[in-house]
This record gives sequence, C-alpha cells and structure tokens, in this order.
Amino acid sequence: MKTINEYMEANRQRFLDELFELLRFPSVSADPAYSEDVHRTAEYVAQKLKDAGAENVEICPTAGHPIVYGEKIIGPDKPTVLVYGHYDVQPPDPMELWETPPFEPTVRDGKIFARGACDDKGQFYMHVKAFELMQATGTLSCNVKFMIEGEEEVGSDNLGVFVKANKERLAADVVLISDTAMISLDTPSLETGLRGLSYVEVEVTGPNRDLHSGVYGGAVANPVTILAQLIASLHDENNRIAIPNFYDDVVELSSTERELLNKAPFDEAAYKADLGIKALWGEKGYTTIERTGIRPTLELNGIWGGYIGKGAKTVLPSKANAKISMRLVPNQDPDKITVLFTKHFESIAPAYVTVKVTPHHGGQPAVTPTDSIAYRAAEKAIEEAFGKKPIPTRGGGSIPIVSLFENELGLKTVLMGFGLDSDNLHSPNEKYDIANYFKGIETIPLFHKYFAELS
Amino acid sequence: MKTINEYMEANRQRFLDELFELLRFPSVSADPAYSEDVHRTAEYVAQKLKDAGAENVEICPTAGHPIVYGEKIIGPDKPTVLVYGHYDVQPPDPMELWETPPFEPTVRDGKIFARGACDDKGQFYMHVKAFELMQATGTLSCNVKFMIEGEEEVGSDNLGVFVKANKERLAADVVLISDTAMISLDTPSLETGLRGLSYVEVEVTGPNRDLHSGVYGGAVANPVTILAQLIASLHDENNRIAIPNFYDDVVELSSTERELLNKAPFDEAAYKADLGIKALWGEKGYTTIERTGIRPTLELNGIWGGYIGKGAKTVLPSKANAKISMRLVPNQDPDKITVLFTKHFESIAPAYVTVKVTPHHGGQPAVTPTDSIAYRAAEKAIEEAFGKKPIPTRGGGSIPIVSLFENELGLKTVLMGFGLDSDNLHSPNEKYDIANYFKGIETIPLFHKYFAELS
Repeated sequence: MKTINEYMEANRQRFLDELFELLRFPSVSADPAYSEDVHRTAEYVAQKLKDAGAENVEICPTAGHPIVYGEKIIGPDKPTVLVYGHYDVQPPDPMELWETPPFEPTVRDGKIFARGACDDKGQFYMHVKAFELMQATGTLSCNVKFMIEGEEEVGSDNLGVFVKANKERLAADVVLISDTAMISLDTPSLETGLRGLSYVEVEVTGPNRDLHSGVYGGAVANPVTILAQLIASLHDENNRIAIPNFYDDVVELSSTERELLNKAPFDEAAYKADLGIKALWGEKGYTTIERTGIRPTLELNGIWGGYIGKGAKTVLPSKANAKISMRLVPNQDPDKITVLFTKHFESIAPAYVTVKVTPHHGGQPAVTPTDSIAYRAAEKAIEEAFGKKPIPTRGGGSIPIVSLFENELGLKTVLMGFGLDSDNLHSPNEKYDIANYFKGIETIPLFHKYFAELS
Repeated sequence: MKTINEYMEANRQRFLDELFELLRFPSVSADPAYSEDVHRTAEYVAQKLKDAGAENVEICPTAGHPIVYGEKIIGPDKPTVLVYGHYDVQPPDPMELWETPPFEPTVRDGKIFARGACDDKGQFYMHVKAFELMQATGTLSCNVKFMIEGEEEVGSDNLGVFVKANKERLAADVVLISDTAMISLDTPSLETGLRGLSYVEVEVTGPNRDLHSGVYGGAVANPVTILAQLIASLHDENNRIAIPNFYDDVVELSSTERELLNKAPFDEAAYKADLGIKALWGEKGYTTIERTGIRPTLELNGIWGGYIGKGAKTVLPSKANAKISMRLVPNQDPDKITVLFTKHFESIAPAYVTVKVTPHHGGQPAVTPTDSIAYRAAEKAIEEAFGKKPIPTRGGGSIPIVSLFENELGLKTVLMGFGLDSDNLHSPNEKYDIANYFKGIETIPLFHKYFAELS
C-alpha cells in the first residue's frame, strides 16, 4: 500500500483534471435557466463520492436543487466528521470582464481561473480527494459523512428541511467546512466567526408608466432620484447605518479583544494598491480589519432603473430598484434586522412614490469556539502542514448554515478554509491557487488524524 | 378635380395604411443593430414623397443616418414652407410593458399604438399627405420643401453639417414642424417655447473589480452608494438644482407672464389620477405648468450598477452609472451647463472613487414669436379647423434644431403639433389618435393657404 505522499504524487494530475471537469458545469443556482446543469453537477459529485469509496451515496431531492449525501462508517467507536460544502456557484455576470470563460477553467500563473474555483467547488472537492487518499492508503481514522448542497448561493432555503428530517443520518461530532479564506500560504489562519446576512430587494414606483422627461420632468417625482435619496440616507456622516435600533443587539468587543484582532498582518498600502483605490472607506472609529470582521455593514449589491442601453433616452422612469444586503455580527438576528429595514425604508418614503421591500435569504451570524477538540485538531493539522500555527480571524462573509447545524444537530463547526481574500469570489476571474488546492488535500487527513487522537 | 374634402374621404383608408407601413419599420436611431432598418425607412419616406408629387427627392447621406429631402417649387414669387420632421424613433424598451408589439401598429379605442405613432412618424407624415392633398386638388399655394431626418432621437448630430452645406437648397420663409403636443382636440394650443437640453452620462468607479460584499463590504466605498449620495445632493430641500451657478442665466418671467401661462386649463386631480401618483413633486414656488414649461429641470433617465439579475448576489460592484439630462430654459446655454455639471460632479466626488462624465447630445432652448405672419397663419388655420383659437403654451420638451434653423438659415419656426401629452412619447404603448392624424391633415393645407395670403 502506498503512503499518502506517494499516492498524492501518483494522482496529482487526475486530482486536478477531476476538479476541472467539475468546474465546467455551469451550476448557477440563482438562475432557473441553469437548473439542468445544477442537477448534472449533483450527479457528477455523487459519482465521484462513490469512486472515492463513499457508501450510501444518494442524490436527495429537495423543493429546490438536490443535496448530495455519502458516508463511510468505519466503526461506532470512532468520531464522526460531517463535511459540508456546496456545488452551486454564483452567476458569472458581468461576463465581459472575464479574461477567460467562467466555465472553462484555465491555468495562469499557477492559478485556476473559473467560477466556483474557490467558492466552493475547489474547496469541497479537496475533501473528496483527501477522503480518497485516506481510503486508498488505509489511514482513515474517523467516520466521514458528506453533505454537499446546491443552494448555498441562494440562501440554502431547503437545507434546513433536509437537516431536520435527517438528524439520525447526519449525527456527528463536528462539522468541517472549507468555504472561507486564510490570510496566505505564509500566514495560515482559521476563521472563528462569520457575519450573518439580511438581503432585501427594494422597488420604488413613481408614475404608473415611463414618461417623457421633457413633458413631465420637474413636476413628477423621478423614482431614480428618490431611490438615490433614500439610499443616501441609509448611512450617516460617520458611515454608520442610519436605521433606528440597527445596532441595538451588537455586542461590542473589549479593547483587549480588538487589540488581538488587529494583530493580524494588514498592509494598507498593498490593500489599496490591489483594489486600485486611493482611500479606504468605512465606519468611523474602526480599523479595516474590524470593519470587515466584527462590525455590521449595509451594502448596495445592485441598482437599476430607466434606460440603461447605449445612447440617450429622455425618459422619466416608472420604477427604480436596488438589491441591498446587510452583514450582521453575533447576537444580531437577521429576521429582526429585515423587519427593522423594511419598516424604516417604508417610513422614509415620501408621499409621491410607493416602495416595496422584498426579503431574500438571510443567515445567522456565528462564532466558533477556539478551545474545542475540533479547533485544536485543525490548529495542529495546519501547523504540521504549513509549519506555522494558524492565526484566529473573524471572517466578513456569511455561511448561514453554521447556526443551522448548531441549532438542529447540536454541532460546532470548524471553518478550515484554504482560499484567499483576493480570489475574486462572486466576481469575474474567480480563481484558486493550485498550491492551495493541494495544500488543502494534504492538511485535511491531518485534521482527521488529530481529531481522532484528541477525541 | 376633387375638392380637398372629397379627396380626403376617398383616400382615408390609404392614408392610414401608409402610416401603418411606415410605423412597421423599427427605425431606432440609438441602437446600431437597427441601422439597416433606419436606412430602409429613409427609402420608404423618399418613395412616398415622390408618390405625393415632390421633386428632386434625394436620400442625402450623412456621417450617421441619412436625411430625406424633397421639394415642390410652384413659383419664385410664392412663399416657401420648409417642413422638418424625423423618421427615427426612440428605443422601445422596456419591451415587456407594451400591450401590443411596438412595431406592429394596432388600433384600440380609435388610437394607433406603435413606437413613433406620435413622435414623429404620425406627425410628419400628415405633412406628406396634406401635400398630396394640395397637389391632387390643385390648391398648393406655397413652395414646399421637406427635410426629414433620422437622428432626432440621438441629438441630430449631423443635421447641422447638412444645413450649413445646403443653405441655398433650404432657403425658405418659415420652418413648419409637427413634433409637439396640443392640450386636446377641444382645447387646441400652439407651442411658443421649447426647453433646451444637456444630457450626460456619469460613471463612478470604486475598486478595480467586483468584490465579495462580505469580504470587503464596510471597508471599501461602494460605488452604488456613492453614486446615490452624489445624485441625492443634486437637488436641495426645495427641489432646486444644487449645482453652483446653474440658474445664473435663467430669465425670470414677470408676474403677468406667469399669470397668463397659468390660465391654460390644468386639472391636478385628473393629472395625478392619470399618472397613478398621490402627490406632485417639483421646485418650490412654482406651479406644475411652470415646472414643466419655464423652469429648468434635472432628471435621472437611467441608473445601473452591480447585479441586476434574478435572486441575490452578494457583490460590491466596481462601477455604477447613470444617465442624467437637464432641460434648459431660454438664455441657458447647453454647453455651458454641461461644463457646470461636469465640474460640479467631479468636485463633489469623494477621494475613494473616481468619476467620469461623458456628454451626450445637447440642444438650445427656443422661443417662437407670436406676432409673425407664420404664427398668425397657424392660428387662423387651427381656428378654422377646430372652431377655436389656439392657446399659446410653453412646451417642456426639446427640439434642438429650432435654434439651428434660426442661426444658420435665419428662419423662425412654427410648432404646430397635434399630439397629446398623454401619448406616451418615449414610453411603452406610444399612441396617436386617428382623429388627431386626420385633423392635422385637414389643418396643414389651411396653414399654407393663410401663410400665402398673409405673406
């Protein structure tokens, strides 16, 4: 029997080829036009789990896109690791900004460019390959269960139903997720907190039809102008969110905690240069690390109204719309925030327009403990693979299912991500370093080993 | 030889059929995809001018879409009427709001629904048919020249070059245009002033690529938020335009002039009910008639940025854009206003974004005299056809070429429009009443008759 290293070397190219095949499926969960592709992706994932040695593999239907389940139980006395991931991806828009097609993975400079390369195909697939590695080398030390869903990018609407109906099947000792970033291969880190999410769509309606801006302009409120005024009023002069009671449930960190958090390396000049901006922005009184980690935010994700084609059209549009999301910190409740937003937005709308607020998905914020066996196992695994202890960080993103697992399964989650903040998640030219992919496949078996040892 | 009335009755259906054929050409000048259609429309117009009896008909190429010229000179001692119109139309977007297809004219309730029905195919074609009528009944009393262009909806960029190069050919005594509205068939009116136009497109750029709103949100300025703040600052609390020096050149009307203007019938309840709005909006201290007639305005014609597809995408976009147009009143200069806007917009942009302002077409405001022979001829023609003297009004729209004709050809313009404000110009379900179409064809020969008599 080969060693882990030998098996890895012998199968390196195939591990990459399989990921590329997975990346070629345009599994965009948000757009119904891709439904067939999403389903075909689930079938591919199920097949690969079987090929790697998983048993009881099943494509579980939901009211939306299916969940792929598979497991390998080696003994009732062994601890069980529940691996969560998602095979769906964000829409690739805007298409014209991709240097190479989003669903044709292309390697440049040691990086795989493709939609889903990092979020989350490249990351969950490391677990499938690490599992194959442990199976093939006889080193599997924990029971493993896989739950790979297809609706993470649209709010995991049907995962809750599935989890509630499958508590027995999903019983485990820890949830292991790779769907976050580390600081760098030189500075490994582990996320210990994630922000929650409230996502709404607003519509401002003025006149009942598009009007000629010369004939009616100046006498009838323009919904684009009004929407802009409403949006502008959502932040105050210190860039704090100006929704009454928005910060009520935010637990402020102690100065010691804030100090610790700000010890993570942060190079403002490099950060600005990478983004091509001259100045940073954000809530007064907080550092960039704090603004993206421990503070709630309100972001405009999209806006549209009137004529947006080429050239000039002198229209006073009937409607204007925006997509707005709020990131929430521990102790803030997404449903409560959605209600606060809706009431506030409706209350500030002037009489000459009507507004409609439609909630999209939300997600609870989460904090993971750093004194658990699982966290220590992850720490040891990373230390062995990277030669350095990981720094604990607070992630700005949201994985709403972390609190679902806690509430429904009573399980804590370890967020062992191998992506980078600069991987262009949700953006054109999403990428994942080949080095990070293989480093992840190398680290995961160490986690299983130490988790079994410490349990 | 038939009388005008007899000829009209005998050819009523054909006059409608020909207009319908003209309306079927999707002559959208703003979108290069329709270039061929625009050219085919010019060919149709040229053929119809020939059929009606025009001579020296020519499709004159320009750097953009062609201009159709045709004439009938009956004698050097006769006054000459230069008829201007445009065969191009606004884009039909948003398509989904049309009850019937924009380029398949459909009659409902005595109205022709089609893009261009009123603006301006239905209106300029009245002149072609009125000319045929006068020719066929031997009642032509003036020389007639037709100049029908294909770029009015995109700013008439090449008309100036054509006019300058063809001063001899275009020599006339008056310009006659039907491209405006009257109050109603019961309350005929004549426009005596038009607003000018400055049209700009703005782009706000934040980070150099779309970012994950969870990873970067709160720390990097969101260009949609910033654009909204910039737009919101363009009007003050009295809905006055907050660009320094914007009102410098506006000549305020005397209280007597304002009183006269406000004598035009205006039913606020009916106006609001028609538009489906609960409250009117506008510059403090002015009536709706004044706001749309004698005051400059700033309108948002379009806005876009970030993800505008279905569902939720948590993106912090790289760019946000808007189309903004300003209607100008007599004595305001579009070029000067465009510079004022650009300087102001650039000056208020905060350091964390860059802004770009791109000017589209502009147009000079215009006032037409009410004491000219041509105005009196129009007044008499309308009085005879409608049984009532027309009310002089100030139109909110812009026909930039009015000042071009004044400056280059030394000609005053008569704006004898037969449309209605409610004709959905530039909007879905544009329409033109069949009654107004025929009333126009009936009135135009009377204008020629009285213009010849008074000259």
